[in-house]
Amino acid sequence: MKGQLDRVDFERMKTIGIDLGGTSVRVALVDEAGAILTQEKTATESEKGVEAFLEKVAGMVERVIGEEEVSEIGLGSPGPLNPFDGVILDPPNLVGWENVKLKALLEARTGLRVTLDNDANAAALAEAKVGAGKAEESLVYITVSTGVGAGIILGGNLYVGAQGNAGEIGNMVVQPGGRAQGNLNAGSLEGLASGTAIGRMGEEILGATGDAKEVFDRAMKGEEAAKKIIDEAVGFLAIGVANLANSFNPSVFVFGGGVMQQEMVLPLLTEKVRTMLYPSMKRHLNLRKADLGTEAGVIGAAFLPRVSRLK
Amino acid sequence: MKGQLDRVDFERMKTIGIDLGGTSVRVALVDEAGAILTQEKTATESEKGVEAFLEKVAGMVERVIGEEEVSEIGLGSPGPLNPFDGVILDPPNLVGWENVKLKALLEARTGLRVTLDNDANAAALAEAKVGAGKAEESLVYITVSTGVGAGIILGGNLYVGAQGNAGEIGNMVVQPGGRAQGNLNAGSLEGLASGTAIGRMGEEILGATGDAKEVFDRAMKGEEAAKKIIDEAVGFLAIGVANLANSFNPSVFVFGGGVMQQEMVLPLLTEKVRTMLYPSMKRHLNLRKADLGTEAGVIGAAFLPRVSRLK
Repeated sequence: MKGQLDRVDFERMKTIGIDLGGTSVRVALVDEAGAILTQEKTATESEKGVEAFLEKVAGMVERVIGEEEVSEIGLGSPGPLNPFDGVILDPPNLVGWENVKLKALLEARTGLRVTLDNDANAAALAEAKVGAGKAEESLVYITVSTGVGAGIILGGNLYVGAQGNAGEIGNMVVQPGGRAQGNLNAGSLEGLASGTAIGRMGEEILGATGDAKEVFDRAMKGEEAAKKIIDEAVGFLAIGVANLANSFNPSVFVFGGGVMQQEMVLPLLTEKVRTMLYPSMKRHLNLRKADLGTEAGVIGAAFLPRVSRLK
Repeated sequence: MKGQLDRVDFERMKTIGIDLGGTSVRVALVDEAGAILTQEKTATESEKGVEAFLEKVAGMVERVIGEEEVSEIGLGSPGPLNPFDGVILDPPNLVGWENVKLKALLEARTGLRVTLDNDANAAALAEAKVGAGKAEESLVYITVSTGVGAGIILGGNLYVGAQGNAGEIGNMVVQPGGRAQGNLNAGSLEGLASGTAIGRMGEEILGATGDAKEVFDRAMKGEEAAKKIIDEAVGFLAIGVANLANSFNPSVFVFGGGVMQQEMVLPLLTEKVRTMLYPSMKRHLNLRKADLGTEAGVIGAAFLPRVSRLK
């Protein structure tokens, strides 16, 4: 475990990826080709405080490094956060964490350099480097699970925007005056197309448990009202994707998250997005499922120190 | 008038900008700092055919060059077009032009190298280099006039997307199932927020002439129904801008086009966009009017050969 090295040496070295989630945290030693060499996973327990978390994670980092020479940590975390200063702002999924200078704190604790970014950006990077979008010039990664978020990769680097807020697509308005959810805009993409939204509609319309999975199961069995919920939610997602295609025209869209694991979603989404594109764009439309599953976060985090951030 | 030179020599040379519009075409000799040295303007008369147009424009190019040494032409044209192949596809504003290989044709005619791109991209480039967005890291230029279009500049270069369709924001859906216009999506930004849309609503609701200017004039005089039309149209534009802010987070938005010349629009737009952003993004919101007026197109066209295209 050594201090910061110059770029040339570093590029041949392994890095540490940390995938910090509301429920669990995963720490891995990852090589330059994106292969996980060792990893540990444990409960996040954000409610026990930042100090306890740092203590725990520093131990995990030390163990996964073992005898290797490592100088860099990449950390993917739920947003909102400031990736330039390395500060966690006030993420709804990390209870009681507000304005936590996680980069500086973890650097002080480990002696390694830390690069912080949001979890969707980390997953986008993994899919672009070694997953469904490798060899593509540009990629928009969209995760549809509890929330809806995106990461944008241009020419192998992370496009984060002027204040690091690029990819906050969950707050895009896809139905003006539509249903509000949490502190999101009325009619937001996340409020209408996330797993949470599908679950809530299941509860209201079907009298289901509130779990999106139940709505999908009932739709698979042919229940019309359940099918209609899915169709509507995927319709709103399609508006979001088509709007991104029309404004950003990436080489490929890659989709991760629990909702996208449902077999019916991607074909339905593709069909709906196609209806909203000019004929000349239609045939280039390229929507794919993510390749890396639950390991995208930690692999992508490990790539964070290796790429540039474009503003 | 010489053949193609290497990059180093070229960067110190003047270039030709051509701003091709449905009504008129402007040709200018522009220096490396974006100053127009000589220019000519005439009617496009696209209905007379491509051959007649080439003949006319080649003459204009020769005259504005005079005794200067020039090797590059940049040409901004209404879309849709393929900027990589230099082909005009089927622009509604150039009557009878379909799959016109304008780059190759104009190169053959003038002996100069031609870079073709759409007019919104050219204007975006001008505003980024020497207009309202200079010194900004990234910029989205939005023109609101007959149509609605955008150009995206990242780090001084043009972001055009995988097939060159980035910035086709007029076709973004901002009201699902909303009013259709031409071959645009139902509820498209252009169908609800362009000058054409405002004029049409004036005609339908106020019994006005169909000219957007009349609706603005009547709103300025306090007519409630006219004010409501403007408020609604700007509301839809605000959704488009907020969605771009939430997905792309550029340093600045710059607005051109006739509708944006109306004094009331930018303050109203800014107020509405702000309501759709997270608190942390609100204070960085940066909306500005374009600086270069009707000369943005020709100045930006002249910059086209000087920049890279990012896919």
